[in-house]
Amino acid sequence: MSDTKSYSPINPPQRYLFGPGPTQVDSRVYQAMTKPIVGHLDPYFFQVLGDVRQTLRTVFGTKNEFTLAISGTGSAGMETAVGNFVEPGAKIGIFANGFFCDRITEMCKRHEAEVVRLEKPWGEVFSDAEASEFIRREKPGVVIYVQAETSTGAFQDGTAICAAAHDAGAIVIADCVTSLGAMPVKIDATGIDVAYSCSQKGLSCPPGLSPFTVSPRAMDRLKSRKAPIREWYLDLRLLQDYYDGAHKYHHTAPISMFYALHQALANIMEEGVEQRWERHYAAHKEFVRRIEALGLPMHVAEEHRIWNLNTPRIPQGVNDTAVRKTLLEQDGIEILGGFGQLAGKVFRIGVMGPLATTDNLDFFFDRFSRALAIAGYKVPAGVAH
Amino acid sequence: MSDTKSYSPINPPQRYLFGPGPTQVDSRVYQAMTKPIVGHLDPYFFQVLGDVRQTLRTVFGTKNEFTLAISGTGSAGMETAVGNFVEPGAKIGIFANGFFCDRITEMCKRHEAEVVRLEKPWGEVFSDAEASEFIRREKPGVVIYVQAETSTGAFQDGTAICAAAHDAGAIVIADCVTSLGAMPVKIDATGIDVAYSCSQKGLSCPPGLSPFTVSPRAMDRLKSRKAPIREWYLDLRLLQDYYDGAHKYHHTAPISMFYALHQALANIMEEGVEQRWERHYAAHKEFVRRIEALGLPMHVAEEHRIWNLNTPRIPQGVNDTAVRKTLLEQDGIEILGGFGQLAGKVFRIGVMGPLATTDNLDFFFDRFSRALAIAGYKVPAGVAH
Repeated sequence: MSDTKSYSPINPPQRYLFGPGPTQVDSRVYQAMTKPIVGHLDPYFFQVLGDVRQTLRTVFGTKNEFTLAISGTGSAGMETAVGNFVEPGAKIGIFANGFFCDRITEMCKRHEAEVVRLEKPWGEVFSDAEASEFIRREKPGVVIYVQAETSTGAFQDGTAICAAAHDAGAIVIADCVTSLGAMPVKIDATGIDVAYSCSQKGLSCPPGLSPFTVSPRAMDRLKSRKAPIREWYLDLRLLQDYYDGAHKYHHTAPISMFYALHQALANIMEEGVEQRWERHYAAHKEFVRRIEALGLPMHVAEEHRIWNLNTPRIPQGVNDTAVRKTLLEQDGIEILGGFGQLAGKVFRIGVMGPLATTDNLDFFFDRFSRALAIAGYKVPAGVAH
Repeated sequence: MSDTKSYSPINPPQRYLFGPGPTQVDSRVYQAMTKPIVGHLDPYFFQVLGDVRQTLRTVFGTKNEFTLAISGTGSAGMETAVGNFVEPGAKIGIFANGFFCDRITEMCKRHEAEVVRLEKPWGEVFSDAEASEFIRREKPGVVIYVQAETSTGAFQDGTAICAAAHDAGAIVIADCVTSLGAMPVKIDATGIDVAYSCSQKGLSCPPGLSPFTVSPRAMDRLKSRKAPIREWYLDLRLLQDYYDGAHKYHHTAPISMFYALHQALANIMEEGVEQRWERHYAAHKEFVRRIEALGLPMHVAEEHRIWNLNTPRIPQGVNDTAVRKTLLEQDGIEILGGFGQLAGKVFRIGVMGPLATTDNLDFFFDRFSRALAIAGYKVPAGVAH
């Protein structure tokens, strides 16, 4: 930090966050972070936390008592799930159809688990028959799937996975990072035992917290765990001692982030959870209609799409990096491209939170079609840019 | 969250944070968090990050290239140090004279290290001779000490520890959670290889980030590490790929917290680092003068005290919980008590950041002496309350 610039206040460029996250944040959420912090053992903090936990249950669709937020980003939530529920030597069954499936596989291997995977091309999902056949054959102690795969745009219904897993005596971990707050995640109805998410996508809050929920069945598993949990920072038993009951000091919770999450959840309750889901669904349908009119087919089959994260295919001959650069530099619009199996094949375009409205889609498609044209794409006649 | 209260905005009670942390935050830092977030791969984020990293080097007193902030609280920093530098089966030498020494011992054990400890009563420190004798005798591969023990108020000079450790081919991890930003931590001059801190004490920023620095010697150790790092989320090699060079996606950094830290560090640079240290030292001397005038002796010997966290002994017959309750409920003042070996024996009173001024000490001692009197303590004649 040079002397001349060190004192310049934060002054970010105008951005419209149409990527997979982080996403646009309501000004009331930012304002909540200006409220003075209290101590991490202050009664007021536990009051805020109590509200947050209760409202998280509503958006998760669960009655799980053990519902809270981990003091880290969504990836810390994934780490928490693995660190607490994946023991060394345990057999873990993973449904692998995207980048975050690979990431959690990597985490399980670091924890010396025996990983078995059922694989599918990125963007496809697993049928009920495939799911139950895999679990019956492999008999894993923990089953993992990604509900909303941020790298592909595919939504995996987990009902058959959870039923088969429970029949086999397994518990189920589901990655709900992208779905929470924007579409129903239905923890209890689906039968998910452990789920983690993030603050910065469907909840429209800045990144920094990872909503987390654990079923009574998984809590029992945790209590009977024999191997020590390596990650002291993410040890759910210690977090339970801090957040519940005697409030035994564990770490200094990020107070301002909890203020922000409190307001973000209050905004959702104000709109109505179901109304919010419907708004995202409507914006998704509208997005699909417009992107197909532009001549870009969706990568994921209609019935398996995430509502708030769209993955249209990049037209032949169009350089996606050039399109993204035009959008960012000329219009302040952030979208992301695909990676891994989908590198150069799809755009990843988030339409969520405050941006999930017709006005914002008008704005987006105006700029997006222009950027495509600049990149040499022949925009169909009759589609404005 | 009931319907009636769910939409009420965050409205914390007025608090004066005279505890060990979190501490009072300047309004400009809160305002920085109202600035709209950008994406975690946005060029502007890396510009903010670059400023933060450069200024952290100044407050740490280091030229270490690998200086950054971990996306978690101070305890995540401790976990990062252990997770990356403590391999299973490795011999770890710990100087143990407080709660956080015990915490890091616990973390090392969870990572299956062979821990050897040199112990002292809480509040004492290790002499140069004790330090080097222990290291020469035990020959650990990693040496750990706590520079500023938040549980005791003692500051451990590490010069002899680091010299002996390096002679023995070991690297040194130092906990600088409480010292950073309020007093010189002198990473390079002391010879510390790995240090972690937090945003919410001497830096006067909300909790949520853990400043972290690694010497070239420790980076070499990391590169040659054989066992996998269990914590994917805290894996420094992955963080280096994200924060340096190609900016390869790892996790979604907590953007708003980085904005806050940027402003908190800018405030420090504006005041001048050395001027800030001097201000804390002056406030500390003034605190000691006044607390001794009240008849409360300091627990730690004069030459080994942390400047920004004071541990006066609780007078005979005074119930510290009652005093703290009076202060919190009547005056909004938070202080904490001792725990572990010092439970019921000391108060832990932080005087740091915006509170480290004579005016704030006037206010504090007026209320503190009154709370002592309410608890039955006979305040010496001539000492106002």
